[in-house]
Amino acid sequence: MARVYLDADEGIRVPARRIRVGGGEPPLLVYDTSGPPGHDPRRGLPPLRQAWIDAYGGDRIESRPPTRPPEEGAVPASLCRPRVLRGNGPITQLHFARRGVITPEMRFAAAREGVEPELVRDEVARGRAILPANINHPESEPMVIGRRFLVKVNANLGNSAVGSSIDEEVEKLRWSCRWGADTVMDLSTGNDIHATREWIVRNAPVPVGTVPIYEALERVGGSPADLSFEVYRQTLIEQAEQGVDYFTIHAGVLLRYIPLTAGRVTGIVSRGGSIMAQWCLAHHEENFLYTRFGEICEILSRYDAAVSLGDGLRPGSLADANAAAQFAELDTLGELTRTAWEHDVQVMIEGPGHVPLHLVQVNVEREIETCGDAPFYTLGPLTTDIAPGYDHITSAIGAAMIAWHGAAMLCYVTPKEHLGLPNRDDVKTGVITYRIAAHAADLAKGHPAAKIRDDALSRARFDFRWEDQFNLSLDPDTARAFHDETLPKDAHKVAHFCSMCGPKFCSMKITQDLRKEAEALAGMEAKSQEFLDQGGRLYVPAAE
Amino acid sequence: MARVYLDADEGIRVPARRIRVGGGEPPLLVYDTSGPPGHDPRRGLPPLRQAWIDAYGGDRIESRPPTRPPEEGAVPASLCRPRVLRGNGPITQLHFARRGVITPEMRFAAAREGVEPELVRDEVARGRAILPANINHPESEPMVIGRRFLVKVNANLGNSAVGSSIDEEVEKLRWSCRWGADTVMDLSTGNDIHATREWIVRNAPVPVGTVPIYEALERVGGSPADLSFEVYRQTLIEQAEQGVDYFTIHAGVLLRYIPLTAGRVTGIVSRGGSIMAQWCLAHHEENFLYTRFGEICEILSRYDAAVSLGDGLRPGSLADANAAAQFAELDTLGELTRTAWEHDVQVMIEGPGHVPLHLVQVNVEREIETCGDAPFYTLGPLTTDIAPGYDHITSAIGAAMIAWHGAAMLCYVTPKEHLGLPNRDDVKTGVITYRIAAHAADLAKGHPAAKIRDDALSRARFDFRWEDQFNLSLDPDTARAFHDETLPKDAHKVAHFCSMCGPKFCSMKITQDLRKEAEALAGMEAKSQEFLDQGGRLYVPAAE
Repeated sequence: MARVYLDADEGIRVPARRIRVGGGEPPLLVYDTSGPPGHDPRRGLPPLRQAWIDAYGGDRIESRPPTRPPEEGAVPASLCRPRVLRGNGPITQLHFARRGVITPEMRFAAAREGVEPELVRDEVARGRAILPANINHPESEPMVIGRRFLVKVNANLGNSAVGSSIDEEVEKLRWSCRWGADTVMDLSTGNDIHATREWIVRNAPVPVGTVPIYEALERVGGSPADLSFEVYRQTLIEQAEQGVDYFTIHAGVLLRYIPLTAGRVTGIVSRGGSIMAQWCLAHHEENFLYTRFGEICEILSRYDAAVSLGDGLRPGSLADANAAAQFAELDTLGELTRTAWEHDVQVMIEGPGHVPLHLVQVNVEREIETCGDAPFYTLGPLTTDIAPGYDHITSAIGAAMIAWHGAAMLCYVTPKEHLGLPNRDDVKTGVITYRIAAHAADLAKGHPAAKIRDDALSRARFDFRWEDQFNLSLDPDTARAFHDETLPKDAHKVAHFCSMCGPKFCSMKITQDLRKEAEALAGMEAKSQEFLDQGGRLYVPAAE
Repeated sequence: MARVYLDADEGIRVPARRIRVGGGEPPLLVYDTSGPPGHDPRRGLPPLRQAWIDAYGGDRIESRPPTRPPEEGAVPASLCRPRVLRGNGPITQLHFARRGVITPEMRFAAAREGVEPELVRDEVARGRAILPANINHPESEPMVIGRRFLVKVNANLGNSAVGSSIDEEVEKLRWSCRWGADTVMDLSTGNDIHATREWIVRNAPVPVGTVPIYEALERVGGSPADLSFEVYRQTLIEQAEQGVDYFTIHAGVLLRYIPLTAGRVTGIVSRGGSIMAQWCLAHHEENFLYTRFGEICEILSRYDAAVSLGDGLRPGSLADANAAAQFAELDTLGELTRTAWEHDVQVMIEGPGHVPLHLVQVNVEREIETCGDAPFYTLGPLTTDIAPGYDHITSAIGAAMIAWHGAAMLCYVTPKEHLGLPNRDDVKTGVITYRIAAHAADLAKGHPAAKIRDDALSRARFDFRWEDQFNLSLDPDTARAFHDETLPKDAHKVAHFCSMCGPKFCSMKITQDLRKEAEALAGMEAKSQEFLDQGGRLYVPAAE
């Protein structure tokens, strides 16, 4: 598995992973989010996009010292950006797309997806896709989120007051990207929240999202009632200067919706939602994220930070799915989407949560209708509440379903959900599980590139090319280790059976033997034609 | 978690598991397949159903020495049945149901499901449900498989020539039932195939299925061409005398369908299907399981062994899903279903395999239409081929979907699928994963009993009753262990937070604080009413 580069014109080179395959088959190129290899995390990644930003930015961008000076000791100077960029007016991908400009970012993302750059531009211009790309995060490799494109996966990082260090979080970032996270969110709430983020952004080859209210709350000592728009605004600007690519903003939690949660089994389960609800009630005032949303957008437009409109009133249990509070908030998110678009700010919409299978589809339909088809970014949803310890699975079921119906990005859930902070193994399990859900949806949506890898792996399986089967899989290490458990010898990696059925009962071996009987096969084909001539009932899948 | 017994009239006592819950809530009773506790596997389980069988059997049943005498040494005499039962004509649950008789088995199964016995009788009589209950397996606790009932899960056991001993397989059986398998299939293909099965049946509190062609093939030295109906018939009778409750029979693999698999990416992936295909081609004769199916049914009807019509031509890759061979065979399974019913034999239909999400629903619809609504018993289906090592997850996604649309029983898939023989941990992971898929489907179907446990767990979660949350989960050991990883102290089991968000950012804690502000709440409710009075848009889920 080597890193190769696709040529996307204009000198743009897009990394991909090449998987060598035996059996006379061509190598397979796969989407790769792992970023440039071999870099020292203490120095950060190279600024891939800097020249592009400088070029299209020109005098639209000013360069200036950070609002918040680097912290002595916590972050080495080499990692802090001595200057940050800020647009003189909107500098967003949406701004350019609407004006017919295909940016290098769009070209890069299109090559990754195997589509025309114009499709990316058009979808971004319509608001049906976003390309999160803060001008202060030149290390990121562009990617596009929208339902016409491959389904994306987000992995959450971040320490809480109870565990985890900065080094651990950077390692989790690299680990997440290695296994296929398309974006990461830094949800840190503990100490060193600013420094942790600096480390993450400088090392992130993927877009980074945050929930700024968390840091704002730390600044006022942890009491929601003490929050103010001024503190929030300051936090937002500092994070935008760090290079955060999208912000979750719980601007749809309105004062009048809070009572709708009073009768719910699990009340409010969004951290940001519950913080804002407490602020609203303490002051008996409308949520400042809502009342000042225009100002927020104006700030974001100058950095190209996208908005991810948080679903602060999402259901935290199946009992609360698709009820009044959730859909009332969704209506407001639709209103806020239009405000963001007025400011040329890219926007996506966050979704539930906990939803039984039969109520999944309507969530997508309502989001599309209410929010003008802005990309839907969902957490799961979990399809049952009774399996803590396995919520990566309870939610992968809902995630595959919702992405098939149109959700553009899935926020992963790890096995530790509801129980504790995920460790390295949990992060990997979460990412792989969500890559499965995303890919199952891509297949169901009939994405032309999706099936190639499945078919290559299936042919390898049928031909007993074990090494190919491992290498083509989402997690070659685990596949190989599982095979080794019962058949560790190298010779078994070319054996025409595995320990599941043993040599005599391997159906694939028997089928292969069958096919070797050339004469019989000739007879088979005649028989087959006869069957078909007699009107044998066939089925052609709708997608083909 | 104590074992309790529900009273189902007529002296029938149905085991259940009682989960004690705090917070002033009543205990929760849950379906329990773990069987009588504390029994020595070397002695087998008590014969729960013997008196019932004796009573309804009367002179309809003859008792006689086994066709195959116990093997010296291999199985202790205490475990071998010195006499076996055989009906003088049909002795099946279908036979009784059609005549309006509610058997003790139906009464027992109804109490387990929380439905009226008449519903079980009626569904069995229609052929829309089966109640597998071989009269030579009195140790089994009755359960019903059909789409009007809770979705069931099967776990596969069985050694192959490459691994596993008898003791291991019996331990896997007990382990599977402990975690919630509703039936097990013994798919042994290695040595001691007959003895392994005897041990499994005598210790199985759940119905046991097999694929008799495997043992028949061992008897003829492993060469499919050497098989004959006589060998098969002998095998079938001996297994029916052992007490096997259902037999997978690949009678739909017709000579003329085999050529339809020639162009497939993965040919034939069913072991039984490939064996029969090889036999057909070697002899250029029609599959004897098809031509002699009437005789087979006549035998099965005398023991009440059910038929599970095997899908020998199921797709082994997404590329082969829903294509000609699969649906041609399904048509034949429909024909065979009617033959089984003519003999009063209970029948279910096996289904795929590997199917992309958008082609799942049509599989159920065609099965229902083609096979007269006989219960559909599916393996997964896997919704992508690219994740060996995680196929419990790729398939749980398809399994939840297909069960929601009407599949009655799901055959589990473990993480070792395609790679090797599952060990104890894999079996547990497979069973829990499939319990999740089955439960997600029960919820989506609106099964009245399904939601109770979810709601109880969600309330426990919201109230920070950690021990309740663990105990109400499908796998309390794992949930507790995960929580212990970061917060091992007993005090943390009553803490109002976990390490995921830490104490300050716990949304549930904040919401609880909110609710305590009684005055504010009064204001909330007024606000809420105001919102609703203004025509606030609400959503009522269709199922409620």
